[in-house]
Parts: sequence; structure tokens; C-alpha cells
Amino acid sequence: MIKDVQIEILYCGVCHSDLHTARNEWHNTIYPVVPGHEIVGRVTQVGGEVTTFQPGDLAGVGCLVDSCGTCPDCREGLEQYCPTFTLTYNSPDPQTGTMTYGGYSSRIVVDERFVLRVSDTLHLPAVAPLLCAGITTYSPLRQWQVGPGQKVGVVGLGGLGHMGVKLAHAMGAHVVMFTTSPGKTADAHRLGADEVVISKNPDEMKRHLASFDFILNTVAAPHNLDVYLELLKRDGTMCLVGAPEDPHPAPNVFNLIFKRRRLAGSLIGGIRETQEMLDFCAEHGIVSDIEIIPIQKINEAYERMLRSDVKYRFVIDMASLKAGTAGNG
Amino acid sequence: MIKDVQIEILYCGVCHSDLHTARNEWHNTIYPVVPGHEIVGRVTQVGGEVTTFQPGDLAGVGCLVDSCGTCPDCREGLEQYCPTFTLTYNSPDPQTGTMTYGGYSSRIVVDERFVLRVSDTLHLPAVAPLLCAGITTYSPLRQWQVGPGQKVGVVGLGGLGHMGVKLAHAMGAHVVMFTTSPGKTADAHRLGADEVVISKNPDEMKRHLASFDFILNTVAAPHNLDVYLELLKRDGTMCLVGAPEDPHPAPNVFNLIFKRRRLAGSLIGGIRETQEMLDFCAEHGIVSDIEIIPIQKINEAYERMLRSDVKYRFVIDMASLKAGTAGNG
Repeated sequence: MIKDVQIEILYCGVCHSDLHTARNEWHNTIYPVVPGHEIVGRVTQVGGEVTTFQPGDLAGVGCLVDSCGTCPDCREGLEQYCPTFTLTYNSPDPQTGTMTYGGYSSRIVVDERFVLRVSDTLHLPAVAPLLCAGITTYSPLRQWQVGPGQKVGVVGLGGLGHMGVKLAHAMGAHVVMFTTSPGKTADAHRLGADEVVISKNPDEMKRHLASFDFILNTVAAPHNLDVYLELLKRDGTMCLVGAPEDPHPAPNVFNLIFKRRRLAGSLIGGIRETQEMLDFCAEHGIVSDIEIIPIQKINEAYERMLRSDVKYRFVIDMASLKAGTAGNG
Repeated sequence: MIKDVQIEILYCGVCHSDLHTARNEWHNTIYPVVPGHEIVGRVTQVGGEVTTFQPGDLAGVGCLVDSCGTCPDCREGLEQYCPTFTLTYNSPDPQTGTMTYGGYSSRIVVDERFVLRVSDTLHLPAVAPLLCAGITTYSPLRQWQVGPGQKVGVVGLGGLGHMGVKLAHAMGAHVVMFTTSPGKTADAHRLGADEVVISKNPDEMKRHLASFDFILNTVAAPHNLDVYLELLKRDGTMCLVGAPEDPHPAPNVFNLIFKRRRLAGSLIGGIRETQEMLDFCAEHGIVSDIEIIPIQKINEAYERMLRSDVKYRFVIDMASLKAGTAGNG
């Protein structure tokens, strides 16, 4: 199409959503499916009306590849809340009627409006996870205006959580990492946490009662939300970005009423904000902590993700796809 | 005390909290208990340093009679979030060590800072419920900046809900009343609702998907929050002001994530805001819809409240207390 950008995919991050979809755990997978929405690569070809990219440019693609462009959400640059957005994979493409295929692939063709500029100053494979894990944590931190003078919690030290700590730290907040694993303390400090709290220790938790301006909760497994809600100050917000398969236990309404607290959710981020996040990361030298794998190890990587055995994101080197094909041929 | 105001209680509203406390349903009642925190009356005596009241003035007392005065919440006029506030009844009084006794009584003595000015232009017994039901709904409507151009829902047509409808209407919002009882439709319109939705009817509910700026949920009985959360626009808030004995079923996190929605709580209001609410009600001619009872009928009134058999608040005429005493003497 005249506004399309063709990208040779160099690296693709491995998101938990990929695993859910590959295994049809959300009961909405249409096979064959090609997961992957943390895509970086190089532009190889552009349509006649493309103005912002040319062959040879670095480029990124995240969770979205299209939206209506006319609804109030789209007009505000919040395409992630458009009721008819098109996801990068396993999503019916309104233009072709076929399903979209994601980043575990050699190439992708995307409308210019949904292609991001990627800095050449950052380690390219480590940029890939910014396209989902990065923006999913950046967007709520911005929405709730996290900055200097604020005490901000990040719950869960995984793909999302480690980005949340880096970003909140770079925004100038006092960052407290909550983890169930004492073994992660040193690493949390290295990532930018000012304090680390072992959430299973009630005494440690109690010391932080009613003291947080904002808590970013990245944990997808069902867990007790009340132990975090009661750490919020009056008018504080806990924002959930993890999507549990089974619901969290019901929160205690009194924890909301007694300090006028808020429990919220947030979904990735819009395209304009994703670009802003990539530029912010380039400016602050922020990338994801990654382990590079060949595509042949993807099933092993999924199993290790389930055990939280990765610091903190797998990224597939797409050169391995050609190697693999050659090897099997 | 030198800053105290003595008030002859003329009327006292009957709040659901009174019933919970009288029956020790929150497991914190210290008997003997005197409920009542929707108090209006006439000043009979003032301490030497009292400057804002004099004998003969009308006056009101709500849920609070003291707070620390120095914490950040108190300094912002949000005494209801002070960690050491003193409730009007069943609360240890830090100055005397005894428990506080509330408004089902002939007199009360309260620090000037916690006494409200009451207009003589409104029907006095119908002002009493404003001191709890009024401020509990007014405060979140103000906090979430309800006004013209907004679509606002009120869930539950009882003591709180009927005030929520009147106040949101007076603030200029388009008000939608949610009720389970088709029999309440005409009354909801009379109170100021622009639309009435029978919440048990899924088709009616569906027509309002993702269309509300704000929903004030006044229902204290455990219920499905998701059917209301999905009616909120992006960034919309549902605020809970009902305090259920048993928790609501857990809300679906996806309903928060997919439109960046917020679930919040709110507790009564501060003293400054309570005065603002009383002045707003005087300006707009707003009072509670009430049924006046003698104190001798309080147990019957409690039973009728449990059946929602009151439009919409009982108010005790305290003259009956003297009559009762005389009759028993």
C-alpha cells in the first residue's frame, strides 16, 4: 500500500502475551499464529506516500498496527483504547480480512503511522522490549505524573517490572521495588530502586503504610491487592498492568474508602507516547536487560519465562530464522 | 471548654451506620452507645473563645467532632482522612478518655471547628441527613469535578443515592439513575434523574457501554461491579461510598486495563467542604426527602430501612425524647 513501510525484522522480544496466544490460553487464538510485538529492524522498502521513513532506517513496531483514526481515542493519540484497533498478531486485519502475523518472522509491512523511529545509539536487540514492556510501564507512569518528590512502588521484578524501575528512576521518583524474592534485592538496586521491600514480610510492608503516591503493579498472577492498596497515601493510585488469567481476590472496599484511594488499569500506550518513550530512553540510555536466543529455543524460553528464569526479557535474533530454515532444508 | 458549642438537638437523621453500630455489626461497638451523626439544632451556650456561633443560632453536626488539626489531611481541610479523627459516636474521645455519644439525644457539646452553619431557609428536619448522606455524595461529585456536559451515573436509590441524584443534577450533569426496582422510575425522575436504567436488564445496560464520565455507587450490599465498570468511558471513575459487610465479588481487571478506568472510594467529607455543601443546598433549595419519626419508633425504622421501605431517610424529632421520658416517668 502507498503508505506502508516494509521492515526486515532483526530482533523481536518475547512477551508473556506471546506465550498465552501461542498456547491459546486466552481462548482466542486463530491458528496458524505468528506471535511477537516487540519488533526492531531496518526499513527495506516504502510506499509512494511515506514521508517519515526511507530504506535503511532503523524502525520499531509494537502491539498495534492499525486503528480507526477517527474516534475520540485515536484523535487524542490513544490508539490503544480505540474500539477497533488492529493488533500486531492474531487480529483480523480490516483491510485484507486475513489475520495479522507478528514479529517472529523475517519481515513485516506496517502503515507508516504505526512505525516508530529507533535511535542508533542504543543496543538494538535491547530496544525491542521497549515496544511493549517499555511503553506499558512508561504510559501509566506519565499518566499519573510520576516525578521528583514522589514515592513510587513497582510490584514484581520481571519483564515489565524491571522497565518500570528503570523508567520511574529516570523520571526522578524515589523508587521502591516490591518483590517476593530476597535474591533479587541487589539486582533491583542495580536497576535503579532506592529501596527494596520483600512483600512477604509484613513488618517490612507495615513500615510503608499510607506512604506511596503511586504504585505500578506488574504482577499477572492473582494476588492480594490489599497489602499494596494500604500502602498508598490519600488519593494515591495503584495501577495494574498485568493481566491475570484468573481474577485477583476481591480488594477490601474500606482500603479505597478510607483514604480516597484509586485502583486503576492501563493498556500499553499510544503511538505518539511510544515514540516519546523511545526518545526518552535514548536520552537516558535506557534499554531492557535481555538474553538473546535463536528462534529454535523459543519453547525452552517460554518454559523458563514461566519459572521467571530470565533477566529480564528474551529477545529472538531473527538471523537464526534463516539459519534454521537453511538447516532444515 | 472555652471553644465548645452546646447545641439543643432538634432533629437527627437515621443513617445505616447507626443500625450497624447499635447492633454491633461492625464488631466495634462499646455499649452503652448513642448513635446519630446527622444532627441539627439550636445553639444554647458557647464557650468564651467561640467566635462563629451564639445562642439562638441554628447549627449542624455531622460524622466528626474532632481531629488532630496538624496532619497533612487536617491542614488541607480533609479531617475525614486524619488518622486520629474522633467520630461523633462510639469513638474514644482523646480529651476525656470516655466514648463519644451521638445525636439520638437532647444535647451535644462540640468544638466550634466541627459545628456547621445551617440556613434558616430550608425545612430544618430535612437538612439533618445532609450532614452525612449529603456530604458523602457531594464530596466525591466535587472531587471528580462533576458538572455540565458530563454523563454521571448514580447506583442505588436510597438515603445516599437520592442525595447523589439531587446534587449531581444541581451541578449540571446529565444524571442516569441505576436501580433494580422499576417501581422507582417515576420517583428518580422527580428527584432529578434525566434517565433511569433498570440495572437487571442487560439490554438497557448495554446501551450505555463506555459512555459515563463518572459513576457514584452508593450500594452497600455486595454486588457485581463489572456491570458498571464497563459503562465508564476511557479514564472514567466509579467511586464507591457504600461500605459492604461482605466484599463485592472481585472486579475483572480487564475492565480497568482496557479503558484505563479507575475504581475509587470516598469517605464523607471535610468540615470546610461540608459547609460548602450546606451552602450549595441552601442556594439550590436542596434537602433530603424524609419521614419524621418519634424516637419510640427507632427499632421499627431500622427494620423498615433494611427493607428499603423509606423515602428516603428517617429523621427523629427529638421533641419525642422529652415526651417519651415524661410518658415513662
